[in-house]
Amino acid sequence: MADLVKQEPVPNDHLVLKRTLNDVVEDDNDLQNGASTKRPIIVPDRKPDLRYTLLKTGLCYDVRMRYHAKIFTSYFEYIDPHPEDPRRIYRIYKILVENGLVHDPTLSGIDEIGNFMLKIPVREATESEILQVHTKEHLEFLSRTPQMTRDQLLKETEKGDSVYFNNDSFLSAKLSCGGAIEACKAVVEGRVKNALAVVRPPGHHAEPELAGGFCLFSNVAVAAQNTLKAYPESVRKIMILDWDVHHGNGTQKAFYEDDRVLYISIHRHELGKYYPGTMHGNYDRVGDGKGEGFNCNIPWPCGGLGDAEYMWAFEQVIMPMCREFQPDLVIVSSGFDAADGDTIGQCHVTPSCYGQMTHMLKSLARGNLCVVLEGGYSLDSIAKSALAVAKVLIGEPPDELPEVKQPRPEALEVIDTVIRAQSKYWKCFKGSHANDGCSLAEKATETVINKNFPLQRAIRQQQIQLLKDEYSFVTLPLANMGLPDDTAMFSPNIYDAQAILVCVHDTPEIWARRSRVTGNIDPSSSIIVDTTVDVIKWGIEKKYGIMDINVPQSLQEQDNYSAVTTAQELLVFIWDNYLKYFPMLNKVAFIGIGDAYSGIVHLLGHRDTRNVVKCAISFIDRKPLRPLIPLVDETLADWYYKNSLVFASNENACWGSDGNDSKKPRKKFGRVLRCDSDGLNNNFEERFDEATDFILDAFEEWSDSE
Amino acid sequence: MADLVKQEPVPNDHLVLKRTLNDVVEDDNDLQNGASTKRPIIVPDRKPDLRYTLLKTGLCYDVRMRYHAKIFTSYFEYIDPHPEDPRRIYRIYKILVENGLVHDPTLSGIDEIGNFMLKIPVREATESEILQVHTKEHLEFLSRTPQMTRDQLLKETEKGDSVYFNNDSFLSAKLSCGGAIEACKAVVEGRVKNALAVVRPPGHHAEPELAGGFCLFSNVAVAAQNTLKAYPESVRKIMILDWDVHHGNGTQKAFYEDDRVLYISIHRHELGKYYPGTMHGNYDRVGDGKGEGFNCNIPWPCGGLGDAEYMWAFEQVIMPMCREFQPDLVIVSSGFDAADGDTIGQCHVTPSCYGQMTHMLKSLARGNLCVVLEGGYSLDSIAKSALAVAKVLIGEPPDELPEVKQPRPEALEVIDTVIRAQSKYWKCFKGSHANDGCSLAEKATETVINKNFPLQRAIRQQQIQLLKDEYSFVTLPLANMGLPDDTAMFSPNIYDAQAILVCVHDTPEIWARRSRVTGNIDPSSSIIVDTTVDVIKWGIEKKYGIMDINVPQSLQEQDNYSAVTTAQELLVFIWDNYLKYFPMLNKVAFIGIGDAYSGIVHLLGHRDTRNVVKCAISFIDRKPLRPLIPLVDETLADWYYKNSLVFASNENACWGSDGNDSKKPRKKFGRVLRCDSDGLNNNFEERFDEATDFILDAFEEWSDSE
Repeated sequence: MADLVKQEPVPNDHLVLKRTLNDVVEDDNDLQNGASTKRPIIVPDRKPDLRYTLLKTGLCYDVRMRYHAKIFTSYFEYIDPHPEDPRRIYRIYKILVENGLVHDPTLSGIDEIGNFMLKIPVREATESEILQVHTKEHLEFLSRTPQMTRDQLLKETEKGDSVYFNNDSFLSAKLSCGGAIEACKAVVEGRVKNALAVVRPPGHHAEPELAGGFCLFSNVAVAAQNTLKAYPESVRKIMILDWDVHHGNGTQKAFYEDDRVLYISIHRHELGKYYPGTMHGNYDRVGDGKGEGFNCNIPWPCGGLGDAEYMWAFEQVIMPMCREFQPDLVIVSSGFDAADGDTIGQCHVTPSCYGQMTHMLKSLARGNLCVVLEGGYSLDSIAKSALAVAKVLIGEPPDELPEVKQPRPEALEVIDTVIRAQSKYWKCFKGSHANDGCSLAEKATETVINKNFPLQRAIRQQQIQLLKDEYSFVTLPLANMGLPDDTAMFSPNIYDAQAILVCVHDTPEIWARRSRVTGNIDPSSSIIVDTTVDVIKWGIEKKYGIMDINVPQSLQEQDNYSAVTTAQELLVFIWDNYLKYFPMLNKVAFIGIGDAYSGIVHLLGHRDTRNVVKCAISFIDRKPLRPLIPLVDETLADWYYKNSLVFASNENACWGSDGNDSKKPRKKFGRVLRCDSDGLNNNFEERFDEATDFILDAFEEWSDSE
Repeated sequence: MADLVKQEPVPNDHLVLKRTLNDVVEDDNDLQNGASTKRPIIVPDRKPDLRYTLLKTGLCYDVRMRYHAKIFTSYFEYIDPHPEDPRRIYRIYKILVENGLVHDPTLSGIDEIGNFMLKIPVREATESEILQVHTKEHLEFLSRTPQMTRDQLLKETEKGDSVYFNNDSFLSAKLSCGGAIEACKAVVEGRVKNALAVVRPPGHHAEPELAGGFCLFSNVAVAAQNTLKAYPESVRKIMILDWDVHHGNGTQKAFYEDDRVLYISIHRHELGKYYPGTMHGNYDRVGDGKGEGFNCNIPWPCGGLGDAEYMWAFEQVIMPMCREFQPDLVIVSSGFDAADGDTIGQCHVTPSCYGQMTHMLKSLARGNLCVVLEGGYSLDSIAKSALAVAKVLIGEPPDELPEVKQPRPEALEVIDTVIRAQSKYWKCFKGSHANDGCSLAEKATETVINKNFPLQRAIRQQQIQLLKDEYSFVTLPLANMGLPDDTAMFSPNIYDAQAILVCVHDTPEIWARRSRVTGNIDPSSSIIVDTTVDVIKWGIEKKYGIMDINVPQSLQEQDNYSAVTTAQELLVFIWDNYLKYFPMLNKVAFIGIGDAYSGIVHLLGHRDTRNVVKCAISFIDRKPLRPLIPLVDETLADWYYKNSLVFASNENACWGSDGNDSKKPRKKFGRVLRCDSDGLNNNFEERFDEATDFILDAFEEWSDSE
């Protein structure tokens, strides 16, 4: 079998179609009839190509890749070994044997491994191969490690960015890299239908000039580069899908300006805080120069994601994009650290989902698929995940997903952002996604045209019309805060009122029907849902003085405008200049709606208002909680907790991702209550009576109202 | 081989796992080492399940199904045979042989067919099996056909809804039905990994009590019903995917109230005009009773669709829904009449796309997939399509799609509608799609809440503010047309003006950013793009009298309100009551924006306005063209063509689906010009100067303006 695998790149394209169909049919006759009774085939001159079905799946595995290991320096490392552990590849090999995909009773990596898989002998990558991606300096540095003393090795380990070295590191790294190359070549040459390279050390963090993140050579990048070089005719385009939970900065860098390689990575990013800790893994890194549009990052904003989000990413982004790219070979940078059970990745991708994703990738590039191990640090999780992938590679159907969930909102947002970023380059995202009003709105905010009018202004004007015409509200002057004149309004009875309601709100919600095709809003069937109307009406009925404060969510003139800061300044201003001086006033109730409620919380912490303010009610839907910071008096936080209600959507992030009710926000956030419903209007309908009862209670006005 | 296939339903669940892995490993040793040197397996007591890879694909084919044929009654039928032609199944079988999937040099349907597929002998469905779906009357009627005379058969053929009978119809129909049953059972029992039933007559139009649409027995429904009955433990849920270009009314009916069978059909519908010509195939037919939510129609509004739309439907609707349903068996009602080249279906699904869809379906139900032939009438197309499906079934990767296109807008709209209809029942569509404001807006229009305010009113009020404050416009009384007071406004100089611009427009466009999560519009980054502002400003500059008419797109009070009718009535009213009587007036130019332009076209056909109206300019974006109907004078249409410009988006449907520029709208639509851009605002920016030049020209006012 070894003679099939060449040690050096094949100089030109000679795809080895080992068995044609006719051979098989004849073999078959031989076996079944005992003798070759060659019967004529109807159309004998056509040569049907069913080779894929007849081929085995390639497997790279070599015990020598277990030699690279961290030099123990303390007893602690025996108990809690380095996560990039030599047993990683062994455990994957072992589970393949246990499940019959590989026949190797000795578990030693023998050559003849049975009916399902074909052993692809692992060899060291050559210097010239490595130099296709890496710098001479980097290669020379690693080539010195076999001769280093223990102390030197430990010093280099210390100096590096999450890498370690021993005297076998160079050998293992060359084998890992060579294994990836051989796996790709075996697929491209048609010796196997697809391949799994169980190799280590991993590669995708290794940049051309630098090892890092447990990676010494950028295995997949080297394999891709050399495959492109060796088969210029049959492999013109390669897609690298990196589902390791970390961003493959090394691979990205190697092909950032290359249009022959589409690099797609799906990883935790968290604004660049997750390893490797830079912004290079962000959605807006789409490639440069010739490579612009051929780099796609799907950056998860948090951990805890799983099957639903990965399937969503595949169906919404990865598969449409790859079908359009039409790669000749697909390489998976297959870390299993997003797997359920991996404590570093803290995600929950199940083995079934890895199987499903592998199955989807098999539909690309006429099945030319090579899966190369990267990270993954739970030995159980990587073994089970790799088994699921291997089973699908050999031809088993993927298992069903154990659970059907909705993708989490954060993931939906990210996918939308990615699609918008990529829609410039990929037809599949045009029309269906890009033209969704968002991009138009973005474009419009860049170039303010004369005839454009901010929607929120139109909506506020409509509110004003009601307040003025129906209730004779008057403008409250705000000096030069730079806000629209109609920001704060008050009822004419306010100077005589003993009790005042102050309603501080965002622009009301708009429920809109949107044309799928043009992305425009259809005004005829869209409505403004103004929850403040209920508040104002109720207050008018009770004969309270009323102040209506609309916090603009943006201001066309101000780039660094913040609605939250404005709400805070506004409330303090109104307190300091008006409410404080109203002669008759002895009861104030605040009602906050949306983000604007942060102004109330701010005021209550920054001024001592307790002599008149009786309570603060807020409806915040999914908006973030704001803590009271008791600047004037430590007891304010306690007071706030007793005299506030904060109604939050049942989907508010403060309840934790698992919907675990036991997680209760701390007291400084006020009395936070979880609504049974989601959405501002629903929360309002559910809890408005409770809110008004609370105000009545605080005002002790039981007598005249009931 | 025949002994494996039982003629009667297996009474209970006995899945035949023919070969376990250990057998194989031992076989393997025997072969390779010449003798059984049984070496110990590491974990011998585990029984890994890799049976799928080891099994063949089942194939049903029997020449007796070719006996059912139309009785020729004219020479014409020899030349142009009935589309449901006996050669259909032969051509599929033949292409499988030619491509080596089946080894049958005789093409006669032999039992031993080689290494890739396993022959599943076809038998007649039994009475009791057929009665699981069909009425006794229907079965009895068909059972009489073998004894009927030629005349009787022709009479029954005449009477039926697109069916024909001969003396062999009953036999062929029972074989077709029995073939489908046997194919499903072979898959469920694990005798084959999946199956292809090349059967005819087709089945999905046959309703329980009635043959129709070339179908005698509802093959797939009978197979599904009997599979559920025979394997109550292992087959609890079946998904039937019907990609025949026609709606499978028979299958839908059989399971409309059944929650064990999810029926999904993707078909041409065209508001029920396409065969079978009822509304049963519409998206809102989601099942009844227990079966509510287990019926899903994807109704294409037109022909001409292809790979892009089918892939879109699969990834957006079918796959997420099926993963959630978790079927134990997937049956494809596999008509190939949506295939490229089928003149009845007139769609363009390529063989590659059939392969891709098959590959996706293999990821469900642990690969338990049974493909049963339905319609498809181009012998070449069905053969190529079936070959692509069969290759994927045996284990080949699907071919790449030949071309990457965006799905057509009509298809995007339909898919959105389907998702909305189904979002009530399927988690996968909640959050991500359902809550997209559309459903909220729909809900809101049902129950008008006090605090809801129509968005278009707010926008009109904003326009009015500009017209009143900036230009002192005045309200034009409209008597009791039931329209808002601010519908028509005019500039104060109008009574003295010689030249008047009449601008008739829809509510302006809104470009909005929408939250992916809540579906709400974000007012802070959304804008109103009011193209009429440019028109008004230009007219004011020219010192023309100006009339601004806003046609509401809906009226909350009127259910059967039509914006187009209103525009027409409005323009005639304004002409009859105002413009006609203006003493100084001798030049009028109409400017129409959006659908409202239909009012102008209507007026110009219904009144002879030629003494004062000089021209009519319209910007219609993608809105439909309106023909001038010359009621007063035949020459009006000619006059309209000479004195009008109608600027249409480059994506307007009037240009034909292939973007074929040679298609020019007829003269009665006026001078229709294709913009280089799409979108009202873009069209406006591109052509506004041309429009105003045209007006100036018509007014012959060169002197004072340049």
